Amino acid sequence: MRVILVYDIAVSEPADQSRLNRVRKVVRKYINHVQKSVFEGDISPSKLERLEHEVLSVVDRDRDFVIIYVFESGTSYERRIITNSDDPTKNVI
Amino acid sequence: MRVILVYDIAVSEPADQSRLNRVRKVVRKYINHVQKSVFEGDISPSKLERLEHEVLSVVDRDRDFVIIYVFESGTSYERRIITNSDDPTKNVI
Repeated sequence: MRVILVYDIAVSEPADQSRLNRVRKVVRKYINHVQKSVFEGDISPSKLERLEHEVLSVVDRDRDFVIIYVFESGTSYERRIITNSDDPTKNVI
Repeated sequence: MRVILVYDIAVSEPADQSRLNRVRKVVRKYINHVQKSVFEGDISPSKLERLEHEVLSVVDRDRDFVIIYVFESGTSYERRIITNSDDPTKNVI
């Protein structure tokens, strides 16, 4: 299936930044980093379960926010990046 | 159509925080605030154009990051919030 994952990590002290980096590292093992807090990719149900488990072992469940949108494989959509950032997935999909 | 909008605003000084608040206010006129940097909702093509225009008039195009995923109306998906936050859209959709 196709997932879009967004995380908002509360960053107010140095430990927060390192937690953010850990989350990023975990999620990147499974799907592509689109930009900053957004990840996207195809993943199997069992790997998604592992991803969720690993993310939850790293985040602060009460202060951070992680949302995963899950779509059937082949769901078509358009990705519009309206700011001046490059689209780092343009070679990926 | 259905859209998911994510913004990452570079917040390092007071002016950034007020820009973030302005972006939030603009986007909320059109779609629902799911949490922090994530918005979601149904919108017509012409309103989406207005939304993009308004957001671009507020953000710093070089430092901020705004992505809009656009789906056909009726696209089905699952929204998993794996942290402890309430799902503020549970009464919306």
